[in-house]
Amino acid sequence: MAALGEFELIARYFERRGGPRRALLGIGDDCALLPPLDCLAVSTDMLVAGRHFFADVDPNALGHKTLAVNLSDLAAMGASPVAFTLALALPEVDEPWLRAFADGLFALADAHDCELVGGDTTRGPLNLCVTVFGEVPRELALRRDGARAGDDVWVSGELGAAAWAVAERTRDAERTAGSGGTAGSGGTASSGGVTAPELLRARARLDRPQPRVALGLALRGLASAAIDLSDGLCGDLQHVLDRSGAARGVALGAEIAWPAIPVDAALDGLPAARRVALSLAGGDDYELLFCAAPARREALAAAAGALGLRITRIGRIAAGAGLRVHDADGTTVPIDARSFDHFRTA
Amino acid sequence: MAALGEFELIARYFERRGGPRRALLGIGDDCALLPPLDCLAVSTDMLVAGRHFFADVDPNALGHKTLAVNLSDLAAMGASPVAFTLALALPEVDEPWLRAFADGLFALADAHDCELVGGDTTRGPLNLCVTVFGEVPRELALRRDGARAGDDVWVSGELGAAAWAVAERTRDAERTAGSGGTAGSGGTASSGGVTAPELLRARARLDRPQPRVALGLALRGLASAAIDLSDGLCGDLQHVLDRSGAARGVALGAEIAWPAIPVDAALDGLPAARRVALSLAGGDDYELLFCAAPARREALAAAAGALGLRITRIGRIAAGAGLRVHDADGTTVPIDARSFDHFRTA
Repeated sequence: MAALGEFELIARYFERRGGPRRALLGIGDDCALLPPLDCLAVSTDMLVAGRHFFADVDPNALGHKTLAVNLSDLAAMGASPVAFTLALALPEVDEPWLRAFADGLFALADAHDCELVGGDTTRGPLNLCVTVFGEVPRELALRRDGARAGDDVWVSGELGAAAWAVAERTRDAERTAGSGGTAGSGGTASSGGVTAPELLRARARLDRPQPRVALGLALRGLASAAIDLSDGLCGDLQHVLDRSGAARGVALGAEIAWPAIPVDAALDGLPAARRVALSLAGGDDYELLFCAAPARREALAAAAGALGLRITRIGRIAAGAGLRVHDADGTTVPIDARSFDHFRTA
Repeated sequence: MAALGEFELIARYFERRGGPRRALLGIGDDCALLPPLDCLAVSTDMLVAGRHFFADVDPNALGHKTLAVNLSDLAAMGASPVAFTLALALPEVDEPWLRAFADGLFALADAHDCELVGGDTTRGPLNLCVTVFGEVPRELALRRDGARAGDDVWVSGELGAAAWAVAERTRDAERTAGSGGTAGSGGTASSGGVTAPELLRARARLDRPQPRVALGLALRGLASAAIDLSDGLCGDLQHVLDRSGAARGVALGAEIAWPAIPVDAALDGLPAARRVALSLAGGDDYELLFCAAPARREALAAAAGALGLRITRIGRIAAGAGLRVHDADGTTVPIDARSFDHFRTA
């Protein structure tokens, strides 16, 4: 292990070739300096080993995901990415790991023209914290609190695959631990070293979420409210209902049609109850959920078509409290609507 | 232990009374929204238990310090604080700890009119990450790279006490561990439960650094370069020399007069070599080191006087590489000039 110091570590892996772009001053001073911007959108996310990712995750994918979950917050706000900071605690300096992490991080950053302008590195249990900066005209920001009764509810992409991949990895890890460190066998999609293509696809959804930045920009002026799906559809929709209701001083609910939910095809072989649970209450999809007046349907379809991205109308906002999911025959689909909560014990 | 959830935790301890101030949108959406600002100064710092603070530190002081080290970066840039985000990983939800932490954090935030606009909470090994936003006219920003040969070198306040407190606490911790968990005795400033007033004062410097925000604002247009002293005077000054030299394509050094260094009075009883090491190479002072043309001496004295803050001229920037500290008779004072580095092994 080379005794790579903090300053050399930053210079080698995180200072970009070519110096700052939009930033007036990048890494290496007490602060970065960004030029005057329109209304500034800011979000921060902290990822912890063993909670947000498995300790043996591919570092290139982890670099991607660390930034992706933050860009997803900008997308949900209709903001255009500008820059980000990265703080990381590392248990040791593992140069191949750092190179792969930085490669994954910068590939996504470059794809969104989002510049690393500052950061901090320290020794400690693995922890990654990104703060991202975007720009959006104030009146076009996609807030959570703008939904009205009668609005359609939409989601982008397909749901449930990432949550399935988490469940399968957790089961594998428990099985490995239970059998004294050897791999488990029998009955899993990955038994005997063979992994089903559905599970590989689900893992890709979990490890490399695609932030819907272009869709967020296209929704400016069309959507009444938006949120990214990180904690599960029902829980995240409930946040929109709570905040939109509070903003208008009314109770708001929603009617969601289970048959309309765009469940990821990777889940086709699973029992119906499992597909419901994964697509309605599972997390980590990083698709956008948004609301819009019915008059916007054609414009939304055209905008999504131009991006080559599937969007699906799954229900509508209703006056009065309550989030109900119904089947084709009108019966209520039972779900555990709670979002994932990092501190809830039960 | 109450099963307090993530969202209740944020609402109870971190959502402010009275809603957002300058922010257009605060905690609770995908992003916070800040109004258009002048040139934006951004800095991020990550604090890890066992490295940046002792695990049993007073949580009120920790809340103060978590923000203070970031405000110190704004001060060193001449930026006016606007807002910050806070991401924290907690091993458990300890409500009295959280309340004290939030009280310490917000007391300092309010004193600087700096608003918490967003964050993230998760379970994990204790880790605190603040990203702070300030505003500064581009042409007045106090960068590290503006020093010139002939400039005076100045520092604010007194140096060395925080580093002494770290050394004493580390020694106490080792002694406690070495004696099987009971407190050590004999020969320390804190033996027998009695703590010398000098050590109490040093601990206060370590635990509650005062970011020199007002001084940073006063230095706009007067200082040619500035940095905050977090890693030790010689190491931090070397950063200024390196960046200022690189910006002009020349080698820059400095001549520092050891007798001029404002060593904290708490260190009066220590041997001279120890006082040199602590005040020149110790960290955690969070005072400002700045450079300015000799023609600015009167203006600087007046500005510091108006703030009731001591500033001391300790030497000058010289053409040619090399940072030399000399005694009253001109002999070179030997120092270990390396900054504190979180990854260096030796």
